[in-house]
Amino acid sequence: MYITLRKGEKTRQMIISKSSQVFNQKGYASAFISDVMKETGLKKGGIYRHFDSKNELEIEAFKFSVKTMREHYKDAMKGKKSVKEQLLSFINAFRTLERGVPIQGGCPLMNAAIEFDDSTSDLIPYVQSAMNDLLLSIEQLMINGQKNNEISKDINPKQTSIIILSCLEGALALSRLYRNPEPLDQTVHYLQSFVEQL
Amino acid sequence: MYITLRKGEKTRQMIISKSSQVFNQKGYASAFISDVMKETGLKKGGIYRHFDSKNELEIEAFKFSVKTMREHYKDAMKGKKSVKEQLLSFINAFRTLERGVPIQGGCPLMNAAIEFDDSTSDLIPYVQSAMNDLLLSIEQLMINGQKNNEISKDINPKQTSIIILSCLEGALALSRLYRNPEPLDQTVHYLQSFVEQL
Repeated sequence: MYITLRKGEKTRQMIISKSSQVFNQKGYASAFISDVMKETGLKKGGIYRHFDSKNELEIEAFKFSVKTMREHYKDAMKGKKSVKEQLLSFINAFRTLERGVPIQGGCPLMNAAIEFDDSTSDLIPYVQSAMNDLLLSIEQLMINGQKNNEISKDINPKQTSIIILSCLEGALALSRLYRNPEPLDQTVHYLQSFVEQL
Repeated sequence: MYITLRKGEKTRQMIISKSSQVFNQKGYASAFISDVMKETGLKKGGIYRHFDSKNELEIEAFKFSVKTMREHYKDAMKGKKSVKEQLLSFINAFRTLERGVPIQGGCPLMNAAIEFDDSTSDLIPYVQSAMNDLLLSIEQLMINGQKNNEISKDINPKQTSIIILSCLEGALALSRLYRNPEPLDQTVHYLQSFVEQL
């Protein structure tokens, strides 16, 4: 029984992980369970044994994508001492989304934001909360930088975090539309000097 | 016969106009013909009398959305003499997208870019071309500003147009996710001083 449960949990995690890639590329509403079946090699019953509904799978897959992104940013910033180095590492880590690292399909937060902004999906509070966490962590970095005199006290941490994230998200979408890293590269280049001057 | 044709053309335009709102809110793949039927009050046959396929309707609806946006920006910039005034008017005109003016559902170019970036949809070339036209028109404004010494020759018009548009698109998505104008307002405020300093 113990082994069966462990195996079941492993399959559940595999379905969540593969679904997170499927939903991030196709969109939550547009991806069918048949797409998840194809990616996982499981039959419909084999998927719904682990989830009550497609809705439950969508929520778990989104949470998994957010966790993947959070670890990606955390890894990039690890060992960086100064606030500006941490900000620059975050910006550089964002850049890899253009080439499908750590997840295929662009930024999972932005994709879900655009998909659900006119809907009443159960995912909306999760998307709002994930985007908020990301904005708050950039804002907190800047507050720390102001405390230790690394960043000017004239800047508004909240506004500045919105500008950095908006710039990155918009430019990633342009790069992905054109299948060309240039728009994101140009924007990252600008943001690097923007951060240096904070 | 002449009158019938004219009436048919009027219905066709009505379907395109209503569909552009439906697709921009629900997404092209996620919106069903039943949604278009509901908005237009027509039966399925009444819609497909005017279009060979849903695909053809999607393309016409996207083109209509782009035309709507182009006229909105053009109207906002009309009569503005200086390049900086024109840029600021464009930025202000973008702001109204947050409250569904001139179209419900956010920026049609960004929505389609995010929806189709991982697909092979027939719409992709139309989205790329529309985004390119928008970027080029901002870039051209800055080139004009450099020619008449209104804008510094040190700035790169292409990079600057990417930054302005990325910032606006990203911030609009944040505002629409939170159903709160603040992120876009903060970004517009920043871009106003950014433009003044060009």
